[in-house]
Amino acid sequence: MPTYSDTDQSALTATVTVLGLGPMGRALADAFLDAGLRTTVWNRTPGKDQELLARGATGAASAAEAVAASGLTVVCVVNYDAADGILRDAAVTDALKGRTVVNLTADTPDRARQAADWAAAHGIRYLDGAIMTPTTTIGTPHGVFLYSGPDDLYQEHRPVLDALDGTHTHLGEDVGRAAAHDIALLDIFWTSMAGYVHALALARAEGITARELAPFAQGIAAILPPLFEEWADDVDNGTYSGEGNPITSGVSSMSHIVHASEAHGIDASVMRAAEGLARRVVGLGHGEDGFTRVTELLGRR
Amino acid sequence: MPTYSDTDQSALTATVTVLGLGPMGRALADAFLDAGLRTTVWNRTPGKDQELLARGATGAASAAEAVAASGLTVVCVVNYDAADGILRDAAVTDALKGRTVVNLTADTPDRARQAADWAAAHGIRYLDGAIMTPTTTIGTPHGVFLYSGPDDLYQEHRPVLDALDGTHTHLGEDVGRAAAHDIALLDIFWTSMAGYVHALALARAEGITARELAPFAQGIAAILPPLFEEWADDVDNGTYSGEGNPITSGVSSMSHIVHASEAHGIDASVMRAAEGLARRVVGLGHGEDGFTRVTELLGRR
Ligand SMILES: NC(=O)c1ccc[n+]([C@@H]2O[C@H](COP(=O)([O-])OP(=O)(O)OC[C@H]3O[C@@H](n4cnc5c(N)ncnc54)[C@H](OP(=O)(O)O)[C@@H]3O)[C@@H](O)[C@H]2O)c1
Ligand SMILES: NC(=O)c1ccc[n+]([C@@H]2O[C@H](COP(=O)([O-])OP(=O)(O)OC[C@H]3O[C@@H](n4cnc5c(N)ncnc54)[C@H](OP(=O)(O)O)[C@@H]3O)[C@@H](O)[C@H]2O)c1
Repeated sequence: MPTYSDTDQSALTATVTVLGLGPMGRALADAFLDAGLRTTVWNRTPGKDQELLARGATGAASAAEAVAASGLTVVCVVNYDAADGILRDAAVTDALKGRTVVNLTADTPDRARQAADWAAAHGIRYLDGAIMTPTTTIGTPHGVFLYSGPDDLYQEHRPVLDALDGTHTHLGEDVGRAAAHDIALLDIFWTSMAGYVHALALARAEGITARELAPFAQGIAAILPPLFEEWADDVDNGTYSGEGNPITSGVSSMSHIVHASEAHGIDASVMRAAEGLARRVVGLGHGEDGFTRVTELLGRR
Repeated sequence: MPTYSDTDQSALTATVTVLGLGPMGRALADAFLDAGLRTTVWNRTPGKDQELLARGATGAASAAEAVAASGLTVVCVVNYDAADGILRDAAVTDALKGRTVVNLTADTPDRARQAADWAAAHGIRYLDGAIMTPTTTIGTPHGVFLYSGPDDLYQEHRPVLDALDGTHTHLGEDVGRAAAHDIALLDIFWTSMAGYVHALALARAEGITARELAPFAQGIAAILPPLFEEWADDVDNGTYSGEGNPITSGVSSMSHIVHASEAHGIDASVMRAAEGLARRVVGLGHGEDGFTRVTELLGRR
């Protein structure tokens, strides 16, 4: 874990404010404290700051008071409705004037762009961001942080953000770009997890425990990265090669999963939806192509 | 790559028949040939054996002729309708009497159990199996093969199966067990892949190429294995802990994905189904629990 002084001696007295003390906000504040930053914290529901205060964080009676304490405020709440609800309070907006907000709340690219427009209109410097890894990775080399918005703002606050450890990537000036990556990546994450919990239910109905299935499931996860790369080439090139694995073969597997699930009374709505997409690709005459052809179907206007 | 003679000197003259020469059947036959086995091949549609014959495989005019050439027949076709269609032909059934079938075709556990019953009724020795890795892994250490059925039969044919290289696991005497693992694991695989191709479509609509997204997508794949293990404990223990990541937070992410997709005219039926499951868990009063609680919902009768 880097201490703040490791990364930038000139900013030893830097301060940071964290708004939102859910699991992720607390993890961020913890990492800032670990790195030796003067950290001010606030949460809508009081009491979530107790451990942080005990560790040396500064509490605040209001969000306005909290943002006034630092040049940089990191926001991490459930979504932009919540973030906007906090930031657009008149006292908070006033206090933020001339200061920087790094919004690490997850939401859609459109919401990020709207927030940036609002910030610009109120003289608030605004960077959007997304955290791609669980709370346990924060303050470790395994955290992954994405940012978009003005590059100079990113460079200016990089020393403080680096206090969180992990990998930080600035994706460009289009402020919606971090959120666009975020939702695409969360799409993969949550869809995969929906597949996993479904597989566990199906396995259980077949007398297989979760712990018995898990090592094999990890084997499946291990074959994804090279396929992700291969399929990315397919999609960018528009080749959709089904060599070695035509979509008709996938459709067959998917229907087995649906049948075996429903035979056990297990909802198969997720797989039914996936199978439907694959069958439509076959129906459109592309049965010899690979499953990547679904991207084309989804992309239709 | 092991040669057959490495694994069992006593069986140097062993023969094997492969029925079904799709991408996977051809990969299996290739690996058997590489290992020095006398390999007889057959496929419903003629002509797919050309390369294999050139490499020394023996062709057969009919499936019955093919199975008569070896003590062990490996079947690998699209599904059990296809496998049954081949095996239950009277001449094939006759020729198989007293011989062994290892059925590496994917289908449901019920179909595997029915095939075993049929085989027993016709004096055919039967082992069910499943291949968990792509064609390119066959004949390499990366192949993963699962089996279920009589252990003595598995032990007897293990030397021939080992010629395929990779990891071979016998899951037990219940002949449906390999297929049960197979569908549960394919459930994870295909659901994840449905998430990936959807993410690629969403990214493209946001001006992000597949190659740009792929490295981050690989990062997502890398966080799955430890979560798979943690979530397996949760499900087996019935703890469903949402600490660090309550299902309400997941629901929020899922709805962002749905909204962002549909705002681009992209079908979000897979994520809509997953979100629906998560929202039902919240609706049942378990919003503080983790996403693993969906397993419980799915498992309800
Ligand atoms: N947890 C993870 O592993 C993880 C990983 C990557 C990214 N993220 C992202 O990080 C963000 C925060 O996640 P989280 O894990 O801390 O939990 P969360 O449940 O998504 O968010 C909880 C936080 O949001 C606040 N909040 C909710 N509604 C609010 C409202 N209307 N007004 C003000 N505050 C409100 C909560 O305050 P109260 O205490 O007052 O309810 C709490 O501070 C989310 O966007 C999430 O997607 C989380
Ligand atoms: N490819 C992979 O990466 C992979 C990985 C793991 C497991 N598997 C499993 O391996 C099995 C075979 O897969 P595959 O990749 O070779 O391709 P496939 O498209 O699933 O199967 C093609 C094979 O099935 C045969 N077939 C289809 N319908 C038939 C019928 N009614 N009667 C007789 N034969 C019929 C085809 O014969 P024709 O040439 O006459 O059509 C061909 O031999 C499947 O169960 C699949 O799930 C495949």
